[in-house]
Amino acid sequence: MKVYDISWPITPTMTAYKNKQVVDIKETKNFAEHNVRESIITLGSHTGTHIDAPSHFVADGMSIDQIGALAAVGPAQVIDMMHVEGAITADMLTNIHLEPQQIVLFKTKNSLKEIDEPFDQNFVYIDASAAQALITAGVRAVGIDYLGIERNQPDHATHILLLQAGCTIIEGLRLREVPIGTYFLCCLPLAIIGCDGAPARALLFEGM
Amino acid sequence: MKVYDISWPITPTMTAYKNKQVVDIKETKNFAEHNVRESIITLGSHTGTHIDAPSHFVADGMSIDQIGALAAVGPAQVIDMMHVEGAITADMLTNIHLEPQQIVLFKTKNSLKEIDEPFDQNFVYIDASAAQALITAGVRAVGIDYLGIERNQPDHATHILLLQAGCTIIEGLRLREVPIGTYFLCCLPLAIIGCDGAPARALLFEGM
Repeated sequence: MKVYDISWPITPTMTAYKNKQVVDIKETKNFAEHNVRESIITLGSHTGTHIDAPSHFVADGMSIDQIGALAAVGPAQVIDMMHVEGAITADMLTNIHLEPQQIVLFKTKNSLKEIDEPFDQNFVYIDASAAQALITAGVRAVGIDYLGIERNQPDHATHILLLQAGCTIIEGLRLREVPIGTYFLCCLPLAIIGCDGAPARALLFEGM
Repeated sequence: MKVYDISWPITPTMTAYKNKQVVDIKETKNFAEHNVRESIITLGSHTGTHIDAPSHFVADGMSIDQIGALAAVGPAQVIDMMHVEGAITADMLTNIHLEPQQIVLFKTKNSLKEIDEPFDQNFVYIDASAAQALITAGVRAVGIDYLGIERNQPDHATHILLLQAGCTIIEGLRLREVPIGTYFLCCLPLAIIGCDGAPARALLFEGM
């Protein structure tokens, strides 16, 4: 069984959205003194690989512990968008077969970046027309390989369209090593009560 | 496909090991002012459902990002230890068939506790004899339904035996709703570079 770990490793020097870094890993017991190691971890709800809960952008939206453990678990298609500059738009999806209830992950040139590069505000994103096309097709979760799924949309149309439609948003995937194809995705966010999102670990299983 | 979420929900009032609570969820952007919600999360490396990396108790042991994404993924057996007071010992395992490379999860009366009870220092744990029996049987990961896998062992024998043998330790599982039987476990810790452990989300899939 071939498995791809598509998670962004968490460390204080990792890329942060708009370079607003909050990640801190503090060792509170060290081995030399205590014969045990323990740490306190600080991170944002939208650090690295993570899931946006509806409450991130919807007034009365569900929090991350309310969306269900399987929100980003199931059959998934990795779609080739390596040629795209700027926005993934609806017209780019017309020739792609989208299964209802499928999870769609877009592999773009974002995945070529290193894990600790400064934030690139010109990342490839999903515009509102593509978000609407995914909803119309019945896609139940969509993933992107950067720390945001949209940019330059002051009304946050991509987020709000997807989250209001109950389509789960996964951000911060690392798809560089993943061949285009179909997989079983297991993306599991921490179950943080009441939170607007949570960091996750994500694996793609081949042939499952 | 029936799935059990066996994760301990994360919240500042959750049970903490020896009542040393560090969990904090701070909303840094609220919806009323910003039309978006964002939070900063603080938690210990051994909060709630989590995996102990070997470096937790072994001088030159691997950190949580080094043990491999599949350390706690695979066929798993939930074993009935609901009758046990105190320690699970080797003699309790003699009549249980343990498959090499299997993951073993012990369901004990720990699972009857609520998620926010004060820490109970009399929790059911795994003693060194049982740890040695699991290693001898070739078990590759072992899980317990409380925030520690051992107590009253000043030399930390259970941790050190298991971690030195490369047997992954999962602590803080919630097995109350899970029938005794065999499953596919997907327990995914955050990939925190260099850390001695990490919080995880854990699902049990039935019939997979």
